[in-house]
Amino acid sequence: MQDEFELIQSLLSERVDVEGSHTIEVDAGDDAAVFLPSPSLSIVTACDTMVENVHFTKETMRPFDIGWKLLASNLSDLAAMGGVGKYILLSIAIPPTWSETEMIGIYEGINDLARKEQVRLIGGDTVSTSGELILTLTILGEIPPGKALLRSSAMPGDLVFVTGHLGDAAAGLHILLSQSETYQAAFPVLVEAHKRPRAQLQIGEWLLHSGYRPACDDVSDGLAREAYEIAEASHVKLVIQPEWIPISTACQTYASRIQYNPIEWALNGGEDYQLLGTISPAGWKELQQKAIACGWKVTQIGYVEPGTGTVEMEVSGKRRELQTKGYNHFAK
Amino acid sequence: MQDEFELIQSLLSERVDVEGSHTIEVDAGDDAAVFLPSPSLSIVTACDTMVENVHFTKETMRPFDIGWKLLASNLSDLAAMGGVGKYILLSIAIPPTWSETEMIGIYEGINDLARKEQVRLIGGDTVSTSGELILTLTILGEIPPGKALLRSSAMPGDLVFVTGHLGDAAAGLHILLSQSETYQAAFPVLVEAHKRPRAQLQIGEWLLHSGYRPACDDVSDGLAREAYEIAEASHVKLVIQPEWIPISTACQTYASRIQYNPIEWALNGGEDYQLLGTISPAGWKELQQKAIACGWKVTQIGYVEPGTGTVEMEVSGKRRELQTKGYNHFAK
Repeated sequence: MQDEFELIQSLLSERVDVEGSHTIEVDAGDDAAVFLPSPSLSIVTACDTMVENVHFTKETMRPFDIGWKLLASNLSDLAAMGGVGKYILLSIAIPPTWSETEMIGIYEGINDLARKEQVRLIGGDTVSTSGELILTLTILGEIPPGKALLRSSAMPGDLVFVTGHLGDAAAGLHILLSQSETYQAAFPVLVEAHKRPRAQLQIGEWLLHSGYRPACDDVSDGLAREAYEIAEASHVKLVIQPEWIPISTACQTYASRIQYNPIEWALNGGEDYQLLGTISPAGWKELQQKAIACGWKVTQIGYVEPGTGTVEMEVSGKRRELQTKGYNHFAK
Repeated sequence: MQDEFELIQSLLSERVDVEGSHTIEVDAGDDAAVFLPSPSLSIVTACDTMVENVHFTKETMRPFDIGWKLLASNLSDLAAMGGVGKYILLSIAIPPTWSETEMIGIYEGINDLARKEQVRLIGGDTVSTSGELILTLTILGEIPPGKALLRSSAMPGDLVFVTGHLGDAAAGLHILLSQSETYQAAFPVLVEAHKRPRAQLQIGEWLLHSGYRPACDDVSDGLAREAYEIAEASHVKLVIQPEWIPISTACQTYASRIQYNPIEWALNGGEDYQLLGTISPAGWKELQQKAIACGWKVTQIGYVEPGTGTVEMEVSGKRRELQTKGYNHFAK
């Protein structure tokens, strides 16, 4: 695999020289990479794949943005655990329809975010395909043993909260698909939310160290799915107040222009890469204080009740079970 | 990504309960997996991708074999470093042309070899594609710090050696592509070498602990390319005696039937997943003794001279530079 590694290495010549680089014993270029983990820390690892025409198209995303978003989605998985990213391995299946210039753009996007978040490429694979461009990134990070934030920690009496705004990324994709230059110019923050998400690593890390053992998940597939993941893993009921869901002014404004309910984007749009969590009232108070001090946005959107893995929406005191618009890759 | 993990988990219900399982803090099913590395060991990691119609076809490989070979190729990267496999993350891009039954077959193939080699699936991603089936496996293993076998350790005066036979996998592929049932029945060992390779983990581990610091590479892309990788990384010249290259009787017999030179398969066929190494004469003596005791096959195929990253073939005392039939994914 020497050729491929040389390619990756040359493209990533401006590769990040991060703080932990001295722990790399064998860098990209040999059969495998070797690093010395930090003493007394566990390894946290996740893997995300992005497929052309499923997760992005050449029309909606520049190569730089595709690379950036690939790494952001991986980092978001680590943020949801409270971990810190350290190393990445990148696999690319390249079709003849993608040029070397475009591939360099993807590497540059990965590289730019890698520099900001202090993670380092240590290996991967590059293969050709006659199909679509497919990118797989595996991330390795560190986390204090026994402290990872789990989906299964939600307890009756907890509050349900989210970070940031929800729905912006889906609204941005809607604008890009509409191909309206007017809307793109009017709502840059929404387009940016779709193209250049940031993982909420700092908040995840604070939650881990808070001692409250919050439940946590990242909002990659829409609030509805993530809420069910926590409810099911914790065997509780999540009750969501839709009017509490934080929708940005830009998102509300664009939604009203096209006469759409922005809550739908928040619930089923996905790719916001915010954190959804549950935490005790005492923990919530502390999180709010920390958020004010750090300039984070956190919003209570509901509460946790005893239950068996369900999610309900409460509107004007009336409840209905939340429907998810899930998908199954094997579904006909 | 809950659905996908549930799918993977249900398909891998017979997943290996390996010795190291107790070090897994968070298993597949949350946003990321967490494990506690063994104290005083480094992490070794590699990533391999297999693409339909590039690395396999439905005609040449059963789903079970595809899964098996994917893991074997990853394990082989670790074997080349002297490492031990522990955990894997699997990403699959599934086109509509592959059925659930076929996907289960792939998981079973991975699972079967995972059980034999004591590695455990801890995460991954499953996405749909309209293109080809693409499988990416990331492997994490352990290795004593500072001891990994490198391509850059070859020294003038070393011997060049390989494990096992070379060319069997390429001969097996040739038989499969010929669609001759007669040849398939006559040379099962060659077909098996293509479909069900085994990584040379034990030999890699012995080499690491031998104290001789051999150079090492796995023969995934053919002897010629791997020899250049060692020569270039070590800034030496490798001199190969083609008549010393170990060709199995089956491979020789099949090659003579079709009037082909089996050395070509050894040099440029690839996928043998044997180890190519260089070692001092004292180390070679010890390796030979160990090989006899363990039933390993090791063969000297040349020697190392001072040089600048070249590989020469010596036939009847005459030398010529070895040509590699490399490829470049960006080549037009």
